Amino acid sequence: MPSGILKFFPIVHWVRLTTRKDLAADIFAGAITTVLLVPQGLAYAMIAGLPPVVGLYASILPAVLYALLGTSRDLSIGPTSIAAIMVAAAMAGAGAGIDPVAGAVILSALSGLILLAMGIIKLGVFANLLSQPVLTGFSSGAAIVIMADQLRHFAGIELPSGLQPHEMLAYLGGRAAILNPQTLVLGGVALGFLLLTIGTVRGGRRRHVMFARFSPVLVLVLGAIAVWGLGLERVPVVGEISARPPVLDITMPGAGAWIALLPSAALISIIVFVESVSISKYLAGRRRQSIDADQELLALGSANVGSALSGALPVAGSFSRSMVNFNSGAHSQLASIFLALFTAATLLLFTPAFSGLPKAVLAAVIIVAVAGLVDLRSIPETWRYSKADGASNLVTFLGVLAYGVEAGLVMGVLLSVLLYLWRTGHPNIAIVGRLPHSTEFRSIERHKVETWPDILLVRVDENLYFANVGHVQDMLTREFQKRPGVQHLVLVMSGVGFVDSSALKVLQVAIDTLRESGVTIHLADVKGPVLDRLRRTRIFEHMAPGQVFPTPQAAVTALTRAAEREKELIPI
Amino acid sequence: MPSGILKFFPIVHWVRLTTRKDLAADIFAGAITTVLLVPQGLAYAMIAGLPPVVGLYASILPAVLYALLGTSRDLSIGPTSIAAIMVAAAMAGAGAGIDPVAGAVILSALSGLILLAMGIIKLGVFANLLSQPVLTGFSSGAAIVIMADQLRHFAGIELPSGLQPHEMLAYLGGRAAILNPQTLVLGGVALGFLLLTIGTVRGGRRRHVMFARFSPVLVLVLGAIAVWGLGLERVPVVGEISARPPVLDITMPGAGAWIALLPSAALISIIVFVESVSISKYLAGRRRQSIDADQELLALGSANVGSALSGALPVAGSFSRSMVNFNSGAHSQLASIFLALFTAATLLLFTPAFSGLPKAVLAAVIIVAVAGLVDLRSIPETWRYSKADGASNLVTFLGVLAYGVEAGLVMGVLLSVLLYLWRTGHPNIAIVGRLPHSTEFRSIERHKVETWPDILLVRVDENLYFANVGHVQDMLTREFQKRPGVQHLVLVMSGVGFVDSSALKVLQVAIDTLRESGVTIHLADVKGPVLDRLRRTRIFEHMAPGQVFPTPQAAVTALTRAAEREKELIPI
Repeated sequence: MPSGILKFFPIVHWVRLTTRKDLAADIFAGAITTVLLVPQGLAYAMIAGLPPVVGLYASILPAVLYALLGTSRDLSIGPTSIAAIMVAAAMAGAGAGIDPVAGAVILSALSGLILLAMGIIKLGVFANLLSQPVLTGFSSGAAIVIMADQLRHFAGIELPSGLQPHEMLAYLGGRAAILNPQTLVLGGVALGFLLLTIGTVRGGRRRHVMFARFSPVLVLVLGAIAVWGLGLERVPVVGEISARPPVLDITMPGAGAWIALLPSAALISIIVFVESVSISKYLAGRRRQSIDADQELLALGSANVGSALSGALPVAGSFSRSMVNFNSGAHSQLASIFLALFTAATLLLFTPAFSGLPKAVLAAVIIVAVAGLVDLRSIPETWRYSKADGASNLVTFLGVLAYGVEAGLVMGVLLSVLLYLWRTGHPNIAIVGRLPHSTEFRSIERHKVETWPDILLVRVDENLYFANVGHVQDMLTREFQKRPGVQHLVLVMSGVGFVDSSALKVLQVAIDTLRESGVTIHLADVKGPVLDRLRRTRIFEHMAPGQVFPTPQAAVTALTRAAEREKELIPI
Repeated sequence: MPSGILKFFPIVHWVRLTTRKDLAADIFAGAITTVLLVPQGLAYAMIAGLPPVVGLYASILPAVLYALLGTSRDLSIGPTSIAAIMVAAAMAGAGAGIDPVAGAVILSALSGLILLAMGIIKLGVFANLLSQPVLTGFSSGAAIVIMADQLRHFAGIELPSGLQPHEMLAYLGGRAAILNPQTLVLGGVALGFLLLTIGTVRGGRRRHVMFARFSPVLVLVLGAIAVWGLGLERVPVVGEISARPPVLDITMPGAGAWIALLPSAALISIIVFVESVSISKYLAGRRRQSIDADQELLALGSANVGSALSGALPVAGSFSRSMVNFNSGAHSQLASIFLALFTAATLLLFTPAFSGLPKAVLAAVIIVAVAGLVDLRSIPETWRYSKADGASNLVTFLGVLAYGVEAGLVMGVLLSVLLYLWRTGHPNIAIVGRLPHSTEFRSIERHKVETWPDILLVRVDENLYFANVGHVQDMLTREFQKRPGVQHLVLVMSGVGFVDSSALKVLQVAIDTLRESGVTIHLADVKGPVLDRLRRTRIFEHMAPGQVFPTPQAAVTALTRAAEREKELIPI
């Protein structure tokens, strides 16, 4: 493996191992992926409320930067539907009044910087706050929001943007009379065609699957021909687009806009990271290779800063394009560099060809592309496995529909964290005794075990920390009320991986109050790291004459022997 | 114990057991605590920016309601310095423009309703989000904010309220020339006297300690006499106060004010609950009795609704008054009912006597009362024990000073939760082998153990959930790259208390990707509840031919025997 500065560029290692055949494979995969990227790029820029050409700018420099820095061989970086709808939501909220292109650039720059910062201080782990049920609920909800939003292009009338799905339907319902029949028919036919091609090849052969993947390009070409050939003048088209980046024609706003968009950028950077890394991990697993989450943060951060410099919207790994790239036989990120070259060529040479694309057909392409993200069956499935996870999925999904993508995501994350704390807040606590003829200790509720009237052995099966120590304390108090004869409490710590300071404080108070009632606290089976940490405090002096025993058996032996000795000394 | 409806009134049980001697003890404790309560009530209302008499109203109906419903025998409910500063912060923030008395009533009502709701759905556990380091940092910071705020009464000039400590000092510094020498001297002498009485008795005898507790009353009386006798006309005094509740003279604002104050009320209800319950638990522990957190929520919620009905501010358990109540020999909450009677009598008979109390002396009383809350030594102590806990303490403390009590508290809670997730996000993962001549399996890094080239046994010492499953997956991938000969992966689940759906999904993907590389996943030593939950999914069909073994030993026996059989069938 390369060392020094080169270790930040995994591609160097791959290029060294590239054969002529690998190079040909990368050129082929890059070309195929470009054919998929171009319509997606135009369409996703439209979701974000941006000029379509911005979607192509998001696919050149970002793809090259990720190719240089990323640790996944297969990930294809560029505009994605989820990142696009989050840009639309940010602009409808905090970014209201800011030019959409300027807002997209600010969001890319801020998300990129946040990802870089997380990579530098190695905080990739915080992106794990997004659990699977939250991500699934979020994607389903966001896809429905996108689909509802695209309906306006079928209607062929201008709608206020940033409406929630239910507001959208109400708005359209009230204006049914002025719907444009040309866009409605064109969009409907395109949608039907796309659904049909996907429907017939489901479970079909690989060639059919590839056909379905590229049917969007076909339907766009056919749509453009239909509009031109049939003279459908009332159908809005993409219109004259220039290869000149739209960002050059605007003035960037001041610091106020950056500060206002910062919370949205933080949410976008988490989504970008989690989406991209889950695709990378999936594909790396299939190659039996690994990816490095902290290096991925640097790569994705650079790609987003690159997108900002290109005047484009935040970028992430695209599932559909990464799969096409992988299935087309890409050997390394060289394929992404060819993709960038082909996209740049398309931008310079073929932009005039896009002007005739009907927006209603682009909307149909988007609707079919995101429909696969809607996964409602997972809600009952997840619920059956775990009510907490099912609730996280459902609440995120409903939250996105009711309050928008940003609020829904925040609600989901907070709920899943609260539910996790709630779950570990009620740990399993067992009173244990000794199995006959052994030195093993088991729960008195599940096994016939030997116990002692003056010794209470309690095992806690969870880390002791702020969210559960109150519960443990309450349970111990109840047990003591039931057992007035107890003189020794032995805490069996085999299931405790750490004791935080809240738990330490409760332990100190418990030692004092129990001492006043003549009970001594002992510890047994304490894990090494926990013991090391406790030694840094004065807890053991505080515990005296309470001791730390290696095992519950050692505790019982020592304590019963001491009791014997006392009896001998003070005969009744 | 009482049953039926009576079980909601723990006092019924205590009253049945009350002897004539207990009754005398409760009357005595109630009287002593009232002497402490009256100056505190006046002073804490002043912290909250309310007419002083409101502090007495907060101590009558709330004390009776808690006495009827609470499960602590000793807790003394009423105005506290922390709740008072949170009211001031809420009014400076969301409540700006609302009449202070109306704001206090709304906050009491909302906090009370939130606490009742949490009690009814038994969510006492969520109050555990406040860890000890966050609570300590919060109290230290809030005490400094209170002290800085009270300095304006020493200055004798009107200051804009709601200033942060540093703004306050800058404001006073710029106006040093117009400071009032009379208030400065009077306040300074009172402060010196109070510090001296506390200083001389530190570690002194019990009678001295009691003297120090009541020196505030003495200094207030002496201060009032000094102002009157020396004719200090430029010293602001409490002024004419009527026993009539100030709430009767205002019009309550509409729903907008209630909605604006809701987030502040949520924070207040958490603080009220955590403060009160930690005092109750401490005192109940000394009596070897227990308290019921869910019933406490109902009692504290009712007390706060009672405070709203009395036109007063949110109430909580007071540490100083509860300790005096306990040390004066209170037998049960009957003492609080006597306290309420004595306070009501004071309110009706002696309010005219309060009009001459100088505000500067009340400020000195407040400063000395809250000085004990400042605990800066705990920051390095906690840091030494655990960097995560030390950071929570420090960040909450600095957050309160820099951004105020509400923002500081929220920052502390979020940070402590994030740090907990970070901590469990990097679980201990051990590759294990068999100890010689035994069936015990231990880490290959710490013990000389037997291993097998085609079987990898991995033990994870933490629940598998969204925040750590990515880390576990990365670690497994790395180990597989190092060991190309492995054909069986056995996950030893002895330390896993639950597997959430995120982890389940990763496990499913891992099964698929490992199968493609010829590796089968098995499970061993799965806890009962985890197994039950996994059986609800299709994971075991998915795993086939992978199996679930009771112990790692059973797995090794079965897998090595299968390998032997294969060798016999296919001789090389």
